[in-house]
Amino acid sequence: MSAQTLVNSLADSARVASRTLSIATGAERKAALQTIADAIESRSTEILAANEKDMEAGRTSGLNSSLLDRLLLTPERITAIAGGARQVSELPDPLGNTLRKSTLSNGIQLEQISVPFGVIGMVYEARPNVTVDAAVILLMSGNAALLRGSSSAVHSNEVLVQVMRDALASTTISADVIQLVPSDDRETVKALLNARGKVDLVIPRGSAALIRMVVDESTVPTIETGAGVCHVYIDEFADLSKALPIIINSKVQRPSVCNAAETILLHSAVANDFGPVALKALHEAGVVLHCDDASLAIAKSVGIPASLATAENFCTEYGTLEINVAIVESVDAASAHIAKFGTQHTEAIISENDHNVKRFIALADCAAVMVNTSTRFTDGEQMGFGAEIGISNQKLHARGPMGLEAMTTTTWIVTGNGQIRS
Amino acid sequence: MSAQTLVNSLADSARVASRTLSIATGAERKAALQTIADAIESRSTEILAANEKDMEAGRTSGLNSSLLDRLLLTPERITAIAGGARQVSELPDPLGNTLRKSTLSNGIQLEQISVPFGVIGMVYEARPNVTVDAAVILLMSGNAALLRGSSSAVHSNEVLVQVMRDALASTTISADVIQLVPSDDRETVKALLNARGKVDLVIPRGSAALIRMVVDESTVPTIETGAGVCHVYIDEFADLSKALPIIINSKVQRPSVCNAAETILLHSAVANDFGPVALKALHEAGVVLHCDDASLAIAKSVGIPASLATAENFCTEYGTLEINVAIVESVDAASAHIAKFGTQHTEAIISENDHNVKRFIALADCAAVMVNTSTRFTDGEQMGFGAEIGISNQKLHARGPMGLEAMTTTTWIVTGNGQIRS
Repeated sequence: MSAQTLVNSLADSARVASRTLSIATGAERKAALQTIADAIESRSTEILAANEKDMEAGRTSGLNSSLLDRLLLTPERITAIAGGARQVSELPDPLGNTLRKSTLSNGIQLEQISVPFGVIGMVYEARPNVTVDAAVILLMSGNAALLRGSSSAVHSNEVLVQVMRDALASTTISADVIQLVPSDDRETVKALLNARGKVDLVIPRGSAALIRMVVDESTVPTIETGAGVCHVYIDEFADLSKALPIIINSKVQRPSVCNAAETILLHSAVANDFGPVALKALHEAGVVLHCDDASLAIAKSVGIPASLATAENFCTEYGTLEINVAIVESVDAASAHIAKFGTQHTEAIISENDHNVKRFIALADCAAVMVNTSTRFTDGEQMGFGAEIGISNQKLHARGPMGLEAMTTTTWIVTGNGQIRS
Repeated sequence: MSAQTLVNSLADSARVASRTLSIATGAERKAALQTIADAIESRSTEILAANEKDMEAGRTSGLNSSLLDRLLLTPERITAIAGGARQVSELPDPLGNTLRKSTLSNGIQLEQISVPFGVIGMVYEARPNVTVDAAVILLMSGNAALLRGSSSAVHSNEVLVQVMRDALASTTISADVIQLVPSDDRETVKALLNARGKVDLVIPRGSAALIRMVVDESTVPTIETGAGVCHVYIDEFADLSKALPIIINSKVQRPSVCNAAETILLHSAVANDFGPVALKALHEAGVVLHCDDASLAIAKSVGIPASLATAENFCTEYGTLEINVAIVESVDAASAHIAKFGTQHTEAIISENDHNVKRFIALADCAAVMVNTSTRFTDGEQMGFGAEIGISNQKLHARGPMGLEAMTTTTWIVTGNGQIRS
């Protein structure tokens, strides 16, 4: 069977099964998630045994310790996975909500309500917890899930999906709403991306190479989750006592993630006084500095090591303790720098001046603008969504952290009493 | 210059110009639209002269009368185009609206607001009025417009764009927010679809072949506007006095458009009594009937000509006075037929039974569900949007008629007082 035939057939059975989700009540979906959470905990021995097979294969094939850690399941991590499913089950039902409502002059009632997409494909990498996290978010939002994880996690994913499907057997929801797409063949990813008309949406989570393949090859609509080259702009009207901790937090607290800062833009009016303080603090926190001419002069004047930043530096998502620094003359100049080098993820302004804050917001063109706070807050859990299926780095449909609501679409319910169009 | 280089350069200047739109107030955008409307009227002689060149070329190249009519501008049509621009200028500002707002426990204020996409490409066919309609909707929603019309309308489009750009010269908004993409080279469409990172969104309006090319080739996000195979289901609990006019209106009032009905599904409980009445009325309205076995027997029993419907018939968007008829045993059977053959555009149920209506809605999976009313109401103007840039036939971002709001995306404004993430 070709990968396309296989994926089409999984999608077809997911589609049929998704109808049991369309007619399930919110209470039934909630109960299904709780049943899944219970099953994951009660079958943890089985899950851990499968995970050990993946770990062993990973060690044999020489996966590095960071990847092995991402692959690892422990009793604590299993408890956390089940807890996550219970947490999602407690969130407000994202389906059937009225988004707009009106009565037309001809008496027709218009109502726009939230409804599921239908069948959603996820393509993701090593961590097996994503298998459950994604499945429960999709199930709670009324969607069937086609899960294409990493081959390195195949045993863990197989058991986790089996446990979830078995749990659904005792509910009104068909087990076929959760399907594992085989990961032994790279072609299954392409097949998922080309199952147009059978899969409503594909969400890739992973490397830039994966995202690029999705963009180039997909005929199915996708939501890109992407890179973050985030900036912190220190305005001339910044409260500098806020600026320093925000700079350090944005860069240092977890440099490997997409909402970490990669570039500091200092207004020239604060550069001479605050520049040395900021550069020194970054250096002392172990951050390697890449500076434009003006900030390089400041670094040199206080004896802090720094190299001259190139255009490539300004485009780079380091993911490590490295940062770019540039001096700018205005909010507009900061915004122009961001427009040139940013990735429309998260941009921060530190300023006490309302006019400058508003102008920065108007010109920012990104998923989240941080005003006097850390870039690290662009995060579904931090923003109170309760769960996050990824951070959208595109403008279509959903922008920024995506929770349950982002996994719904809408339909118009147009109710008449026999009206016809003249 | 290659088509890609050309389109990239237009997109770059549109991007720079779009910043004048980002910082323009709603009042400034509104005034710009009114200035454009005035200019279109005051320069109508010039516009009509350019249109006559297109008409002449069209006649020479043997365009059929329907295409020539679509291409034609008249003083009345120019007045209508200007009136449309004024109407859009009067609509509520779609930008800067607060969609969600909350305060987190750490004191951070979250606000999700509507913002422009930035640069939007439109690919469309013959009618030159779309050049203005699209430009003003995009401008009012804060977006720069890259307009790629048909080569058959090139003279009309060139003058219309020039008139709009000249009008903007007296405003705070840069003329470069409206750009005509040359239509003399088919490659400019592909270039637009591949201007990833330079164009935020492309909306194709036109033939199935154009839509398919967009789906296959685009690396830029797109919103598909597509085909409508719409159904009218007559439930066993239908008020048959409503059913007949709705069936006739859905099929006959304007058969060429995407929200016209292509298939009638009759519940078996009403088939014997109402079937003959409905088939006779359709036949008398000049509609050619394609019937399944059961409805064919009904047609024969009352001497109405009909052919046996094939699966291909049930998939066809006729665009003409032809219709399919099938008898079904339940709401679920009607929904299954729709799931198999529909295009997720508009589906109607005629029923006085709440349970059946709700189940039909839950299983419909389409942009608009009509309850006891005509499929022809899936239309931005009819639904009170005031303007429509197209009807989305996809689930991502916007579904159904798209007005100003659909041309916006969102950003999160996260306002703190120095908070950092622990």
